[in-house]
Amino acid sequence: MAGRLTPEREAELYEAVLDLLREVGYDGLTMDAVATRTRSSKATLYRQWGSKPELVARALRHNKPAQLDQIDTGSLRGDFHAAMALGDDCKMEEDSALMRGLMHAVHDNPDLHKAMRELLVEPEMNGLNRILRRAVDRGEISADLPALKYVTHMLVGAFAGRQFIEDKAPDRAFLTDYVDAVVLPALGV
Amino acid sequence: MAGRLTPEREAELYEAVLDLLREVGYDGLTMDAVATRTRSSKATLYRQWGSKPELVARALRHNKPAQLDQIDTGSLRGDFHAAMALGDDCKMEEDSALMRGLMHAVHDNPDLHKAMRELLVEPEMNGLNRILRRAVDRGEISADLPALKYVTHMLVGAFAGRQFIEDKAPDRAFLTDYVDAVVLPALGV
Repeated sequence: MAGRLTPEREAELYEAVLDLLREVGYDGLTMDAVATRTRSSKATLYRQWGSKPELVARALRHNKPAQLDQIDTGSLRGDFHAAMALGDDCKMEEDSALMRGLMHAVHDNPDLHKAMRELLVEPEMNGLNRILRRAVDRGEISADLPALKYVTHMLVGAFAGRQFIEDKAPDRAFLTDYVDAVVLPALGV
Repeated sequence: MAGRLTPEREAELYEAVLDLLREVGYDGLTMDAVATRTRSSKATLYRQWGSKPELVARALRHNKPAQLDQIDTGSLRGDFHAAMALGDDCKMEEDSALMRGLMHAVHDNPDLHKAMRELLVEPEMNGLNRILRRAVDRGEISADLPALKYVTHMLVGAFAGRQFIEDKAPDRAFLTDYVDAVVLPALGV
């Protein structure tokens, strides 16, 4: 039996999945199409990823690894600014369209919802919590600050509000301004 | 030709539209079904509302009028608390499921998006802006406060984050706590 795929081959497969998602959307994407596009067998795809929702969530995670873990600038403001600078503006615009389509698909596909929560949302929330815990340890913010439990809500507001109210993809300038105007003042920093 | 409907008859029609939305969703709702359920003619429905998206948006607005306009407690904190107390918790839970379905439908129906923006989102944003402007006039907050342009984003974060992160409908206790922990501190109040 074939062993694990090489990292290069795995990256190639994920790129093909993302391309297909952009072309035909989640509902239109089939394991057959992924197999054809990547010249692999459906058996390999299922052995490696188990299911379409997991393959899609892994492809998205590959595209946007939980990089928050690598951030540690020594101050909360510095960490937030570094986090908001992780995205590339052009890519954010592209990803934003992709994610809108997927949030739509999540509504009808509980398995996709579960896979995205486990592979995308939870790692990012863990990374964010580590950034906040270090700020508490440094004495920058108090552990019982009421706003602390709402930092993810504030950030969801930045992304969803930008899209919903302004009909624009969030870019680095907007996110940095939002952090300075909203998140840090709410945290008393 | 028949004149305008009586307010009672109009309310009856809107209630029927909301019941149908809850039963079959936006895509499943037809003008035929509304006509049958309300014992009216399709001609009346189209004459009165022009189209399905507008009928649906008007029914939602009837269900949740822009009550922010009626709030004026004399302080920004008082106005926000009164705004968060407008909803009835049971109804919020019910409405939240209804709105999730509609946000989903908006993705595929630009006309529904436009009608909801004009009839639901804009009146609420105008009401919110009046509350904020009075706080500026009273000297409670400065007109050039950076967080001022992001108040709607913060509130979108409360609703969307509650749903997306916590998988719960927002209730009055949550919204009041969020306003006290996030919105007012971000505004320096």
